[in-house]
Amino acid sequence: MKELTVVKIGGNIIDSKENLNSFLQKFNTIKGAKILVHGGGKIATEISTKLGIEANMVNGRRITDLQTLEIVVMVYSGINKSIAAQLNAGGIKSVGVCGADINLIPAKKRTKGDIDYGFVGDVLTDEMKIDNWQLLLDAGICPVVAPITADASGQLLNTNADTIASSVAQALSNIYNVKLIYCFEKSGVLRNPLDENSVISKIGIGEYESLKAQKIISDGMIPKLDNAFDAMKQGVSKVIIGHALHIEKLTDLTHETGTLLTLDEK
Amino acid sequence: MKELTVVKIGGNIIDSKENLNSFLQKFNTIKGAKILVHGGGKIATEISTKLGIEANMVNGRRITDLQTLEIVVMVYSGINKSIAAQLNAGGIKSVGVCGADINLIPAKKRTKGDIDYGFVGDVLTDEMKIDNWQLLLDAGICPVVAPITADASGQLLNTNADTIASSVAQALSNIYNVKLIYCFEKSGVLRNPLDENSVISKIGIGEYESLKAQKIISDGMIPKLDNAFDAMKQGVSKVIIGHALHIEKLTDLTHETGTLLTLDEK
Repeated sequence: MKELTVVKIGGNIIDSKENLNSFLQKFNTIKGAKILVHGGGKIATEISTKLGIEANMVNGRRITDLQTLEIVVMVYSGINKSIAAQLNAGGIKSVGVCGADINLIPAKKRTKGDIDYGFVGDVLTDEMKIDNWQLLLDAGICPVVAPITADASGQLLNTNADTIASSVAQALSNIYNVKLIYCFEKSGVLRNPLDENSVISKIGIGEYESLKAQKIISDGMIPKLDNAFDAMKQGVSKVIIGHALHIEKLTDLTHETGTLLTLDEK
Repeated sequence: MKELTVVKIGGNIIDSKENLNSFLQKFNTIKGAKILVHGGGKIATEISTKLGIEANMVNGRRITDLQTLEIVVMVYSGINKSIAAQLNAGGIKSVGVCGADINLIPAKKRTKGDIDYGFVGDVLTDEMKIDNWQLLLDAGICPVVAPITADASGQLLNTNADTIASSVAQALSNIYNVKLIYCFEKSGVLRNPLDENSVISKIGIGEYESLKAQKIISDGMIPKLDNAFDAMKQGVSKVIIGHALHIEKLTDLTHETGTLLTLDEK
């Protein structure tokens, strides 16, 4: 099978133009087919605030009302075009898309439970068609994916970028040998969040449960790792978590840095 | 040669969700390969104002400083995704792009003359490569194009949507029989701007000069028609100008409505 690298770049790297540029230059060197999924960063919140729209957070998650949706669509799509332009200038044929484009990522609005998250999309991974992804990848094009999807009626939906990366990696693992790399502003999964030298270099699925039980892995890292393990269970060959500015070391799998996840018990 | 319809939809139709929806439903019925280029509408100005950034107009044209550029990129890209999502929901395979994506529309920053327009792009029509357009069109995909381009360094640039439509139509007329349709909130080129029943149904290139001399055609209509006649001189087979909500009548060329341009003297 051909190789495909799916990279998710976290929002905090995007907040700094300098870091984003360094990252993109390194991303350019990744060989073979590749997809870049990006988060939104703080810009959406900043612009909302300036426009007088209060962020409405419940349990640390953003409620996306219609006004907020319009802003995140604008901000994420703007970042998306800026990244695609830079990649093209660097010699990587690249197209900025979101899940709505050529129905790349089918989704549905999250069902109201105790909390109504508003215009938030859950990815319908099983319904993802790979022909349009293949069209782009076979033409040597790197899709840059903004964390927006649409439902069958064309309603745009705010969607978690980690989940998008995981879902795309899963769907494409039927025809590619997929490496999924989550990169952000830390060197990997840390045993001590305050110590960059405490990277856990390998986490088996059994160990993951134990690290959660011990609260060594907590908060925002849990959904990220859940997404990652889900991807592996669905056929993604490798998941690596590490620092965006070490992307070239994460992809060559010499494993000098970052956290490698495995489905082994240990 | 295969048929291709390039439609430019004006900003004022986009400002109303209802009008935009009606337009898109009619656009859906156009047979064969098609490209939709859209303007920006008033939303960019509204958001700029709310963010405290004054629009800086010189001779009726917007000066695009870096802050303004960031806003137009966001706003136009957001509109772009929303249109693409609606087309996909309506059964048209559609991808929202700008000129920066897969280098679809090469451009350069406008040279400073008496006026520095800032981050404004002039399209390099002669350098436009058609292979990436063909990749999308051959796959049955309708590109939806936001009026943003990039230069060779990846700098995004605000670019006139009429010019984009004309340039794309010209470049693709080597391999397609291209109809270019400019549609907006009026029924065509009007002899009397206040009378919707005064549509000039046909304008030859000689007559165009005479209508300009008589000031019957003036202001914003001149660059639009210049773009249109340029396109015809470069091989675009038909240019029609008319009302966005009559798009289905404009494309079938029964010529019940709208203004047809011709290179004939009369």
